[in-house]
Amino acid sequence: MTTSPLLEKLIQHFNRFPGIGRKTAQRLAWFVISGQKADAHDFADCIRETVDNFTTCGQCLMLSEGNPCPICSEPSRDDSQLCIVETTSEVYLVENMHEYKGKYFVLGHLLSPLEGFGINDLHLGELVSLIEKRKPAEIILALKPSAEGEATIHYISELLHNQNINLTRLSTGIPFGGELEYTSTLTLANAWKRRYRV
Amino acid sequence: MTTSPLLEKLIQHFNRFPGIGRKTAQRLAWFVISGQKADAHDFADCIRETVDNFTTCGQCLMLSEGNPCPICSEPSRDDSQLCIVETTSEVYLVENMHEYKGKYFVLGHLLSPLEGFGINDLHLGELVSLIEKRKPAEIILALKPSAEGEATIHYISELLHNQNINLTRLSTGIPFGGELEYTSTLTLANAWKRRYRV
Repeated sequence: MTTSPLLEKLIQHFNRFPGIGRKTAQRLAWFVISGQKADAHDFADCIRETVDNFTTCGQCLMLSEGNPCPICSEPSRDDSQLCIVETTSEVYLVENMHEYKGKYFVLGHLLSPLEGFGINDLHLGELVSLIEKRKPAEIILALKPSAEGEATIHYISELLHNQNINLTRLSTGIPFGGELEYTSTLTLANAWKRRYRV
Repeated sequence: MTTSPLLEKLIQHFNRFPGIGRKTAQRLAWFVISGQKADAHDFADCIRETVDNFTTCGQCLMLSEGNPCPICSEPSRDDSQLCIVETTSEVYLVENMHEYKGKYFVLGHLLSPLEGFGINDLHLGELVSLIEKRKPAEIILALKPSAEGEATIHYISELLHNQNINLTRLSTGIPFGGELEYTSTLTLANAWKRRYRV
């Protein structure tokens, strides 16, 4: 039986997604082919329409349907706080807390020599310009606690250490609902070191 | 921050796929938006082109780029063996063994009252017509050993019991590389019952 080049191409498209291996990609491709043609057409149109409409905000570099984005152009948002995140999807995560009323800056990447992302990939020039323009009192580094996140936090704190800004980062520790037994030694040691009075 | 209806629609499209929950759907949607527009356009075009070109074979009901499909129209394939599978993707699995030279029939579903699939969803009329036309000596029921698979195997064997056909099914037991410790009691009991001389 000759395999279908079209099917193979569709499988490879799915295989490019993060966390989608070959087997899952095959399953997803078959789901597309086996379903209603109209659904697949809607899906294809939706992909096109979304990527055609999303653009990078010239101020915070987040991806949204406008430039400037809805957050940078919202007058009620507070310029005195700036939250630095890795990707736009994390803007949505922070927004979902319904807690933060400041603005954002999207780095696009963390420092990761192994993945080939150096300081020139972090749009730090745009970050410094934005800080000079908005003069935030606090910058919240909402980056993940990993080797890459720590390196990025360290680099940005060095970069901004001369400026009179309160630079903060999210606390690290045992997640709510987490078991001590399944907590990594590094996380446990960190939570121990940062223990606080009850 | 207003959420984007376009993004939400794309997330829901991904969420429809089997095994893709809301969180993963969000991750996949962001991957599309964050990547190259050209890649997303290629992906959308590939989906359209694939579903537009794939059609159901009028004989075996498999999805392929031709009707009749490459297997039904291949004269070297043996009409004396008919392998019954649930979905077209399983045709590819059997083909990948490079062992089987017979033909196929795709049921489309297993009997599953819970999921709303009854005997009218199994295209059994088409199956009986195909059997009358091709008169296979053996029918191999390559269906998964689950409640639904067993019910389907039982129903088909009842349906065909008057015909002079060698009706077989795949063996059940402990998979190669499997640990006895992690084998379910049902599988172990079945492997025990079907033990054979070495």
